[in-house]
Amino acid sequence: MMNQLRDHIERIVPLEDTEFETISSFFSYKKYKKHQFLIQEGELVPCNFFVLKGLLKLVYSDDTGKEHIVSFAQEDWWETDFAAFYTESRATMSLECVEDTEVLCLRLTDYRKLCAAVPQLEHFFLEKAYQGFIAAQQRIISTMTVGIKERYEQLLKKYPTLVQRVPKSLLAAYLGVSREALSRLSR
Amino acid sequence: MMNQLRDHIERIVPLEDTEFETISSFFSYKKYKKHQFLIQEGELVPCNFFVLKGLLKLVYSDDTGKEHIVSFAQEDWWETDFAAFYTESRATMSLECVEDTEVLCLRLTDYRKLCAAVPQLEHFFLEKAYQGFIAAQQRIISTMTVGIKERYEQLLKKYPTLVQRVPKSLLAAYLGVSREALSRLSR
Repeated sequence: MMNQLRDHIERIVPLEDTEFETISSFFSYKKYKKHQFLIQEGELVPCNFFVLKGLLKLVYSDDTGKEHIVSFAQEDWWETDFAAFYTESRATMSLECVEDTEVLCLRLTDYRKLCAAVPQLEHFFLEKAYQGFIAAQQRIISTMTVGIKERYEQLLKKYPTLVQRVPKSLLAAYLGVSREALSRLSR
Repeated sequence: MMNQLRDHIERIVPLEDTEFETISSFFSYKKYKKHQFLIQEGELVPCNFFVLKGLLKLVYSDDTGKEHIVSFAQEDWWETDFAAFYTESRATMSLECVEDTEVLCLRLTDYRKLCAAVPQLEHFFLEKAYQGFIAAQQRIISTMTVGIKERYEQLLKKYPTLVQRVPKSLLAAYLGVSREALSRLSR
């Protein structure tokens, strides 16, 4: 499972064996069942999670208790409540398993030690942060400019395998439409 | 003007005088008039811009020619079409002056040389990228969960000075409402 992390990092920065040994010493492996929580709203955020296998949803619940899906995370994605994680404050979102999921966990103190020990990791995380920022900005533009049908089609085109494995009710909560409205679109 | 950049960077990473000399050698100063373009849609993106003074709008025009404002940038903000800048592809957005604006420009090749010459700059840009990502994610959540009136109030609370200097028609194009609907809210 550590090889999966190494392959993932080496797509951006090459690593020596000794460097990867150092890196892997900062991660811990965990396994969760479907419906288990990795982050609970209102609690401290333990880790940034690298998904080895499975599927997560990052959820924001509004004042009425309605769930809005901020993002999904599948294999080789990083997910956490980033705002709360980096500021060591309480989560405003929850992170929950949509499928049985295996992750590698990186605590904030270990993230900092890791970047100090293997400085090129900052370059890796910088690339990931840019990708995340650009994807979020594109989602904002898409929400501002195109209708639900086109947003569904963009999602299908960008993440075909993700769309297939996500239950339709969750896809609706991501797109901000009712389950029925989504059914009409995806026929 | 270089002092402004130094103060800005040193809020995140401390610098030696010689390091800052290296850094400043990679930036060039430019001055633009209100309504001038820094980035034109469909063209290559020359730089990432650090705003010394003034106000910019990053605009996405939809198929009907309607303008949507993706973000504003005022003093001490960085702005560009990040997706196009980092991939050296053609801009899908335009960047235009809302006021007379002075910027420091950083080309992509110089950005790379800069990070190689002063590695702690990667840490600085990483912090900025996280801030940008978190702000974009919060905007997505806000769009999904609250009405226009609350989004306007959140904007006022978060960026009081920005909201005051931005013409109401542009604020409406940022929030995705008509000028008239915004007038009713901001009375």
